[in-house]
Amino acid sequence: MPSTALLTDLYELTMAQAYLEAGKRGRAVFSLFVRKLPETRNFLVSCGLEPLLEHLQSFRFTKEDLKYLKSLNLFKGWFLDYLEAYEFRADLYAIGEGRIVFHNEPLVQVEGPLPEVQLLETLVINLMHYNTLLASKSARCYIASRGRTLVDFGLRRAHGFDAGLYGARASYITGFAGTSNLLAGKRYSLPVFGTMAHSFVMVFEEEKEAFRSFARSFPDKTVLLIDTYDTLQGAKRALELLKEGVRVVGVRIDSGDVERLSREVRALFDREGFRDVKIVVSGGLEERDIDLWLSTGAPIDIFGVGTKLLTSADAPYLDIAYKLVEYEGKPKFKLSPGKETFPYKRQVIRHYEGGFMSFDLVVPYKEGGLVELLCKEGKLLRPLPSLKEIREVFMEELSKLPPELKSLEKVAEYKVILSENV
Amino acid sequence: MPSTALLTDLYELTMAQAYLEAGKRGRAVFSLFVRKLPETRNFLVSCGLEPLLEHLQSFRFTKEDLKYLKSLNLFKGWFLDYLEAYEFRADLYAIGEGRIVFHNEPLVQVEGPLPEVQLLETLVINLMHYNTLLASKSARCYIASRGRTLVDFGLRRAHGFDAGLYGARASYITGFAGTSNLLAGKRYSLPVFGTMAHSFVMVFEEEKEAFRSFARSFPDKTVLLIDTYDTLQGAKRALELLKEGVRVVGVRIDSGDVERLSREVRALFDREGFRDVKIVVSGGLEERDIDLWLSTGAPIDIFGVGTKLLTSADAPYLDIAYKLVEYEGKPKFKLSPGKETFPYKRQVIRHYEGGFMSFDLVVPYKEGGLVELLCKEGKLLRPLPSLKEIREVFMEELSKLPPELKSLEKVAEYKVILSENV
Repeated sequence: MPSTALLTDLYELTMAQAYLEAGKRGRAVFSLFVRKLPETRNFLVSCGLEPLLEHLQSFRFTKEDLKYLKSLNLFKGWFLDYLEAYEFRADLYAIGEGRIVFHNEPLVQVEGPLPEVQLLETLVINLMHYNTLLASKSARCYIASRGRTLVDFGLRRAHGFDAGLYGARASYITGFAGTSNLLAGKRYSLPVFGTMAHSFVMVFEEEKEAFRSFARSFPDKTVLLIDTYDTLQGAKRALELLKEGVRVVGVRIDSGDVERLSREVRALFDREGFRDVKIVVSGGLEERDIDLWLSTGAPIDIFGVGTKLLTSADAPYLDIAYKLVEYEGKPKFKLSPGKETFPYKRQVIRHYEGGFMSFDLVVPYKEGGLVELLCKEGKLLRPLPSLKEIREVFMEELSKLPPELKSLEKVAEYKVILSENV
Repeated sequence: MPSTALLTDLYELTMAQAYLEAGKRGRAVFSLFVRKLPETRNFLVSCGLEPLLEHLQSFRFTKEDLKYLKSLNLFKGWFLDYLEAYEFRADLYAIGEGRIVFHNEPLVQVEGPLPEVQLLETLVINLMHYNTLLASKSARCYIASRGRTLVDFGLRRAHGFDAGLYGARASYITGFAGTSNLLAGKRYSLPVFGTMAHSFVMVFEEEKEAFRSFARSFPDKTVLLIDTYDTLQGAKRALELLKEGVRVVGVRIDSGDVERLSREVRALFDREGFRDVKIVVSGGLEERDIDLWLSTGAPIDIFGVGTKLLTSADAPYLDIAYKLVEYEGKPKFKLSPGKETFPYKRQVIRHYEGGFMSFDLVVPYKEGGLVELLCKEGKLLRPLPSLKEIREVFMEELSKLPPELKSLEKVAEYKVILSENV
């Protein structure tokens, strides 16, 4: 992994130098939390720790980085030496990936010498923000899907390549079957899926010839895209192939009145006994479409969810912050209107009623709660869970989420009580 | 740069293998265009060619990539050999970065053997989509700013690090003064800016002590964050330092009623003769806030624009596609409802009236128009313009944009005429 130490805001470094000059090297705690959930979210899913730790552990200023910083004529020689020696040696407390979380809950808390932990602000926010944003969005798709198969198709319109990678990972954690993104498949051992594009159909003189060619190349994996010219005609051509004995796993509909078309195509195949041909749907859809279609019984088996998933289109950011909460054991907080913060390193104690989450107490830190000490002086205390294990955590969490909070509409806010009592 | 060949959708590779098996290696043209502008956009700014070319020229399947692909049990040995030998050798036609563009205009057109140019779909869309999305958003901020200074503060809530880098670059092209993102500063030689965070103020017992410490470390660069506890109190403390002879370049307000506070703080400084202390504003703002505040004469000098810029929050994606338009010289198009495409490699001929853009003709390709041949058989025909040059292109373009299209509200659609006549 290339150096990511410069993937930060200038002020992290100017502050670090000024802290050191003022003798402010005491022990500080910074807390990453979401102030307020987006309008359309009833819960969030914590995600991003593995990418974060990967970056923290390789966080170094290279010679080239230092040369650049020197060229800015802002920093003193001794400070550049300090940066050269910098490595992540702080304590890190976190709520595990896949856990359901709410406003004011500390997803990550970093404790160490003030300049060292200040420096990490931009990195911690960037990685935890997008991953948590995405897992929270994909979890909604999973809820809407009622057990149908979901596949991430979003790489092309994700905001850059790392968003594509993290999006594939986050959606897998929350119940997606896999992704179309090959690098994500390779890096995270995720199942990969793919069908064909309209261009494939258009290159051949006849749609049926295109279908036949593809089926010849991938005899056990053929999903035919049937909406290039006319969806029902496309379905009929797929049916002709089926009758000739060609194996077709499914057909994909990417445009038009998906609900009606899925019924008509299903009926067409069923009439001829091809009940196991799957119907795949894609094309700018998200959880509300999935919910609407399935609520009326549309016979859709697989959803390819892309653009609106990986951009979290209805809520493209979280009001997330990384704030100083303790310095040398003293509470720290700010009073900026609408952006007040709460002091102390914190623990989250979750209370249940009838098997469901009932309310959370956010109290000064003690052991035993959602927050765990993950790194001591920069060293990971135990291996991180696998993606499959994180996915199980999420499924377990989801089973305890109060049913009303599973609504795609905003309902009453989950109760999070900030308390000074341990 | 690490290999990005796997940053693609599985179906690009399955299609490529099926094309080759079917003998479909003829010359194809794919066109990247935006079907329809987002609700809140009157124009787009083409952006992303330099990142795209960087990736195209390093596009290779590594041994490790091929090993992974083999493990999928989907691809034939001869096809993996084909991928191993793959390098970008196509022709690339493009509209230069910084140009103002509209719906149905081919930002990028790639021409070459069908399997070779199909393969690039995901890469081309991903890079051109985010960069164009961002330049189009930042251009709106520039218009709203009426010549004030704009700085990108968005890295922390961008969707990953790529988005942070590209966002800094795109916003610079459209008139931003610089960015807080150090890696973007280094990589693209952009001016970097920074102030201080609330944590800096909170660590000191007294706000004034924090201010003094920072000013001591950065005597010529001090911008004080004054809203940690009470903005007017903070301003008064900054004023005390000024009176003591401490140099303060500016003060930053990050919360509260920015319009009122900026006036009160300005009056406070002006009364004492500190007319050159700049007022910096930040905190979840975007072009509509900038426009509203400046339209009432709020005395703000510098805007730090972050989250809503780098996520393009009001329009987080474009309806952009990379579609086959020609194969072996024949026109190709699809009829999918709402997603029709138009055949042929294209040129855009822009017509002007009274110095302003009047309408665009999108005609079958010929020389002389917005679209230029940039790469021939994979080789760049001339050096790419510098960012400063692209910025000048954008400024020139903006001066020709019809004034009504500079509105932040959606106005009538610019006329783009698709024609079959050369």
